[in-house]
Amino acid sequence: MASPSPVKVLGLCGSLRRGSLNAAALRAARELAPPGLELTIFEGLREIPPYDDDLRHDGYPPPVQALRDGIRAADAVLIATPEYNYSVPGVLKNAIDWASRPPEQPFEGKPVGIMGASPGAIGTARAQYHLRQSFVFLNALVLNRPEVMIGQATSRFDAEGRLTDEKTREFVQSLLVALRDWTLRLRR
Amino acid sequence: MASPSPVKVLGLCGSLRRGSLNAAALRAARELAPPGLELTIFEGLREIPPYDDDLRHDGYPPPVQALRDGIRAADAVLIATPEYNYSVPGVLKNAIDWASRPPEQPFEGKPVGIMGASPGAIGTARAQYHLRQSFVFLNALVLNRPEVMIGQATSRFDAEGRLTDEKTREFVQSLLVALRDWTLRLRR
Amino acid sequence: MASPSPVKVLGLCGSLRRGSLNAAALRAARELAPPGLELTIFEGLREIPPYDDDLRHDGYPPPVQALRDGIRAADAVLIATPEYNYSVPGVLKNAIDWASRPPEQPFEGKPVGIMGASPGAIGTARAQYHLRQSFVFLNALVLNRPEVMIGQATSRFDAEGRLTDEKTREFVQSLLVALRDWTLRLRR
Amino acid sequence: MASPSPVKVLGLCGSLRRGSLNAAALRAARELAPPGLELTIFEGLREIPPYDDDLRHDGYPPPVQALRDGIRAADAVLIATPEYNYSVPGVLKNAIDWASRPPEQPFEGKPVGIMGASPGAIGTARAQYHLRQSFVFLNALVLNRPEVMIGQATSRFDAEGRLTDEKTREFVQSLLVALRDWTLRLRR
Repeated sequence: MASPSPVKVLGLCGSLRRGSLNAAALRAARELAPPGLELTIFEGLREIPPYDDDLRHDGYPPPVQALRDGIRAADAVLIATPEYNYSVPGVLKNAIDWASRPPEQPFEGKPVGIMGASPGAIGTARAQYHLRQSFVFLNALVLNRPEVMIGQATSRFDAEGRLTDEKTREFVQSLLVALRDWTLRLRR
Repeated sequence: MASPSPVKVLGLCGSLRRGSLNAAALRAARELAPPGLELTIFEGLREIPPYDDDLRHDGYPPPVQALRDGIRAADAVLIATPEYNYSVPGVLKNAIDWASRPPEQPFEGKPVGIMGASPGAIGTARAQYHLRQSFVFLNALVLNRPEVMIGQATSRFDAEGRLTDEKTREFVQSLLVALRDWTLRLRR
Repeated sequence: MASPSPVKVLGLCGSLRRGSLNAAALRAARELAPPGLELTIFEGLREIPPYDDDLRHDGYPPPVQALRDGIRAADAVLIATPEYNYSVPGVLKNAIDWASRPPEQPFEGKPVGIMGASPGAIGTARAQYHLRQSFVFLNALVLNRPEVMIGQATSRFDAEGRLTDEKTREFVQSLLVALRDWTLRLRR
Repeated sequence: MASPSPVKVLGLCGSLRRGSLNAAALRAARELAPPGLELTIFEGLREIPPYDDDLRHDGYPPPVQALRDGIRAADAVLIATPEYNYSVPGVLKNAIDWASRPPEQPFEGKPVGIMGASPGAIGTARAQYHLRQSFVFLNALVLNRPEVMIGQATSRFDAEGRLTDEKTREFVQSLLVALRDWTLRLRR
């Protein structure tokens, strides 16, 4: 029996800063991708304008259209996000707000995995539960486990932003394996 | 005994579209302000850029500085927000993310009232609870009541965006009275 | 090809009172069960004692064991719950706390549907999102949709507790169809 | 000027087991009470029956009445709770459900502090935010800070359940000081 076609995953990062731990975690995930999974990182978050419904009626701005197309074309989505003010960063939420609008809502039925890195101890838990609530509305099929919350993250990456902590590498990879298997299970 | 100086409230709207029900609700609130309360509406939300910590290190962009100054100078904040994807609009959350950064966090100890209007039945409840969680982190002193959730809002405003429904006008005014009294109670 | 064996669903009610709208909604669901789904209602909630970990070490009390066995034997679980104090009733949460303990956690991988009836307008939404968060931990596979929140419920049932509102009957049935199909999709 | 009368605080624990870390944390808090604060621990949680609205109509059971009277007589409430299944223990929520019913809702306007101890890293955060949402409904005035989440709690108490970790002792005491000052601020 032929192996299934690889699970194409789009990675979204919730932070814009150059030294973002979450961007670094997403690059690590790309490198750690298990067999049967390909991770592409969406690079255009910075160009997504503030959501304005009047603007939408004039047609989706190209960076928004690129995001919408990227989600639609992917088999699954992986989000790596910091926590700002005990919730989802506005920048990430704004991208989701654009992505979620008609005519086609690209998260519908889409498998989603969530991870987050933070310098503190709790490691983005609060942001992740808020994000999960948005995905109930969007009818995305979010993995329950593993919940990848990378606390004390500063010490787990080197100065070039490479994830060096071996346990964390395994943890991130276990999320990718779970996301691949969940996607295949739902594909059948 | 002299009457206390009026409670100055800064109003923040969570939506950018011209015909926003929440912007209209905020204008209604300004008109309905009870004695001892003055409401000013922050008009620069559209100019707040996506939060980027690198950008912050270069100095706050002027529209962000204006928001921060406005919150600091106010005695209380009134937020009127729609609900997007069962949570706070990214546009509003992004403004809060900018406002909350060092050196001075202007929501610290600040009385806050929350209202929201939506065309649906539940009327922004889910967004309001997420917002409340952010304000725990920011140590704002959010009014518990009244929780102003204006459902079926389209029918409560006229074509010019005036709040015409009498019960809703009273409801909005009761929030302003409660916010004024809560601010005075905490001021002593 | 033979039709699959029916999906056996265990119904849990979050209220103990005799005239409970949620118990009535669950009875309506049993009556409205579509082809391929059988709903059994767990009747022993009243006998579940307050969770006490010392008591657990002496062995599960028989009503708790019956609940655990019932969940394990079912293909899916349907919860009908009121909202108390903007969250899950303690009585229902206590039952889940007992059910979730070792050696076998019976919600693991179990499809779950949620409904709720309330006299008010918002109709148990807040309780349902809290319940969803517990099911992330328990790795239950909760249906995103339909979210059955029956507001103004008093008017939708007759004096004998029969669900008479036709639209609500269809709504409840659509949840059962979705739960059946979700369970079959995950069974493959 | 005479010093104000001491702030009387009622402590509620969310766990029933004899070796409860949260019961131990509450006893530590009683011992660490700063000048001007007296902490009494409610001991009757075990006797609170499952909430049943029919039972309520026959009159509050004596242990429930004792809880209601205790909250009403106190100037403030301190809750120490574990987290079960990413939320508030059913046992604690059930007590709150009883306490919150008419004719008099004793949490109305009551200052509340929250703490929690857990063996894991996140330390009851998720339970605390759910509890905060209930207190919005109940119009309790919950302290934002400090948020006392005692992670890895097993190592911070000795075999007799005494809180031995000095930093944690200071942390618990800082909550009591903040609760005392918050109560006095609101009393004026």
